[in-house]
Amino acid sequence: MSESIAQEQSDLNLEHIMNDLDSNALYDARGHLHGLLPAEIALLLSSLPIDYRNQVWSIIAPEMMGAVLVILQGEVRTGLIEQATAQNLIDATSDLDINDLAILVGDFPAVVRDKVLERKGDSRLETALSYDGRTAAGVMDLNVLTIKADLTVDAVLQYLRGQSKIAANMDSLIVVDEHDKYRGMISVSTLLISDTHLVISTLMELEKAISLNMALPDVALLFEQREILSAAVVDEENVVKGRVSIDDVLDIVRDEAEHVVLSSAGLDEEHDLFSPVLVSARRRAVWLAVNLFTAFLASWVIGLFEATIEQIVALAVLMPIVASMGGIAGSQTLTLVIRGLALHQISSSNAMKFLAKEVSIGLVNGTVWSIVVASLAGMWFSNIPLGMMLGGAMIINLCCASFAGVLIPLFLQKKGIDPALAGGVLLTTVTDVIGFMSFLGLATIFLIN
Amino acid sequence: MSESIAQEQSDLNLEHIMNDLDSNALYDARGHLHGLLPAEIALLLSSLPIDYRNQVWSIIAPEMMGAVLVILQGEVRTGLIEQATAQNLIDATSDLDINDLAILVGDFPAVVRDKVLERKGDSRLETALSYDGRTAAGVMDLNVLTIKADLTVDAVLQYLRGQSKIAANMDSLIVVDEHDKYRGMISVSTLLISDTHLVISTLMELEKAISLNMALPDVALLFEQREILSAAVVDEENVVKGRVSIDDVLDIVRDEAEHVVLSSAGLDEEHDLFSPVLVSARRRAVWLAVNLFTAFLASWVIGLFEATIEQIVALAVLMPIVASMGGIAGSQTLTLVIRGLALHQISSSNAMKFLAKEVSIGLVNGTVWSIVVASLAGMWFSNIPLGMMLGGAMIINLCCASFAGVLIPLFLQKKGIDPALAGGVLLTTVTDVIGFMSFLGLATIFLIN
Repeated sequence: MSESIAQEQSDLNLEHIMNDLDSNALYDARGHLHGLLPAEIALLLSSLPIDYRNQVWSIIAPEMMGAVLVILQGEVRTGLIEQATAQNLIDATSDLDINDLAILVGDFPAVVRDKVLERKGDSRLETALSYDGRTAAGVMDLNVLTIKADLTVDAVLQYLRGQSKIAANMDSLIVVDEHDKYRGMISVSTLLISDTHLVISTLMELEKAISLNMALPDVALLFEQREILSAAVVDEENVVKGRVSIDDVLDIVRDEAEHVVLSSAGLDEEHDLFSPVLVSARRRAVWLAVNLFTAFLASWVIGLFEATIEQIVALAVLMPIVASMGGIAGSQTLTLVIRGLALHQISSSNAMKFLAKEVSIGLVNGTVWSIVVASLAGMWFSNIPLGMMLGGAMIINLCCASFAGVLIPLFLQKKGIDPALAGGVLLTTVTDVIGFMSFLGLATIFLIN
Repeated sequence: MSESIAQEQSDLNLEHIMNDLDSNALYDARGHLHGLLPAEIALLLSSLPIDYRNQVWSIIAPEMMGAVLVILQGEVRTGLIEQATAQNLIDATSDLDINDLAILVGDFPAVVRDKVLERKGDSRLETALSYDGRTAAGVMDLNVLTIKADLTVDAVLQYLRGQSKIAANMDSLIVVDEHDKYRGMISVSTLLISDTHLVISTLMELEKAISLNMALPDVALLFEQREILSAAVVDEENVVKGRVSIDDVLDIVRDEAEHVVLSSAGLDEEHDLFSPVLVSARRRAVWLAVNLFTAFLASWVIGLFEATIEQIVALAVLMPIVASMGGIAGSQTLTLVIRGLALHQISSSNAMKFLAKEVSIGLVNGTVWSIVVASLAGMWFSNIPLGMMLGGAMIINLCCASFAGVLIPLFLQKKGIDPALAGGVLLTTVTDVIGFMSFLGLATIFLIN
């Protein structure tokens, strides 16, 4: 994983701007910003500590602001909107199309929002604001060019030539009937190579349309399974309302991936990397509190065996090994199941087969490592029975860890709780409690007289 | 996270097939397979335990096999290739285009590969096999349609109409000069709406081309930052060699995301969910071995304080709390940094500012939770000084955890080691060692006389 050229470039942008601001060279900073793409400025802003960020924001041209805000997400976006004047925001949005506006105005102060909506005067915008962002409706393009199924290729080509502007990323056109109901899709390449006298309905593909309320992961799967670049979005009456294209799907996949990684540490992708210390501390505290509860639970289990530990202090020295190895083995299984659920590879039909496999792996690795651990610990403390207890506890914990690693995420999914969020904590609770209990319990039974 | 419709559908496919095979109803199984898309069959196969999978594979029509193998990855693919006869493989590949062939034949047995290469007789195929899969060359489409810059729109449209077939996902065409050197891109929509007498060179966009050896994450970033759907791939002489399109980028992003999640648990995305128990056990054992080393290190630290624990057994009861809270706080920071590095948000310019922020958070949360923990532990053991030692150790460990969470991934990245792979283990080592050492050390200094 060596540094990439793109990495070097964005590092350089950041370094230049921070140096400029440190030396109060605003003119130079403006020069550095000039020539950057909106996406590059967005990355730069989200990488800057807040005071630097606000300074950069104040020297960005209003016509660039809109494009940058559309790319930014979450707190960074709302923070910058707060920093901008009402007039800045109105100027920033004047060049935006209706989709970008729909993304932004929801975050605007009410007064500015009303002004923008009024000026745009497009009823679709208000409808768009009511759509659920987690559905196809929330990401679809509202500007759709549809063509009638009974036209000839020639008529369509002439019609297109009459348009002053069509989306640059247009790979195919949506075909509708006379009531604007969805019929199919025709790729632009088909239009280009087909006999111009042919009628569209004979050339179009009968691709499935997406319903307004289709969940985003389903939208992504549909695109990947069907290898399409765009799809029509229709309402319950099959009337075309918008179009989802593969660049939206790319955002969906990125967001999902971010979510899985961050939520496993109790974090949220909407949060600013540089949000104020107290705000961040409070947010992270929630996760620490949850974990404190499980840590105390583990301590309570250890506390049950105080008398045993008093007699054999070596137990206290060795007990973290059992808990930690169980945690590692369990998290391997858990990770596979969370991924399997996300990819739709694991379901009730094959879960038991998978469980059997994982528990067997736990048994094999538990046995192998218990021999290693038992020998090492037996030698360290010159106490063979102690080593045997450690080894026995490890077999128990690795098997239980495999069980928990499969069953916890399946259970959470069934209860409608995100396994990526809660799976890790629950698993650690199980492997800690069983790890300590099995080791100290075995020792109490066999080593204490 | 309720079950999606797509999830239900794939669960149903799996259930039906497994039931059919369990009751030996191969004819029904064939019926269920019929009508599924290649991607659906690929998902089904990768979700099946190996014995079921091989049965399904044996009843899939050879003309479907090729398309399914192209979608599958890693071990599942190589396993199925092993199961197929040479003739099956040759039949399976007869309909595939040169890109799909390039993906597959590398995994074929040498004899079959030679036969396929010979029959196809396309020198590009052998060149493609030599490309590095982690670069643009490894994913690019070899079938490129280029047009000359000095043609008129009309000439291009006529030329296209003369082609029997163009890629359905074509959003734009690559423009070259008379020596096949890259000049720019022209979107199909521009072709459609422009005056037919205009010359291509006046209409094309001067988009950057991608070099053959550009790393895949850079390719993805380029597409996202420039909001393009396809780009030309050129060699050092600027000659067009292929084309990358956004569906390739979608695969890149998915693979990267998978890799981050899986490698954090020492797993590999190439592996089969249902690989044999002993094979899986051996693979997972590596990660367990690494972690065993760190667990013994932590035990060794505890061992240094045996005499102290002998006097105050409550220390053994409470010590996992310090280690575990440090691990949680550190992993929050680590996760943010790994993500920040992947998104190019964190670099040497802003790392110190971020470190200062994270350590402050550690200090705030360390203080807050140390008060909670100290009070709880003090009451539990009716021992206020003991509680204070616990609280003090927790402040120390949470601050160190923040430090480690920032510096470990930065260090690994600099050394060319994937932070997602090794970051977690190193962090846990630090938080365990410092957690146990600070708590037991403080107790030895202040509580033992």
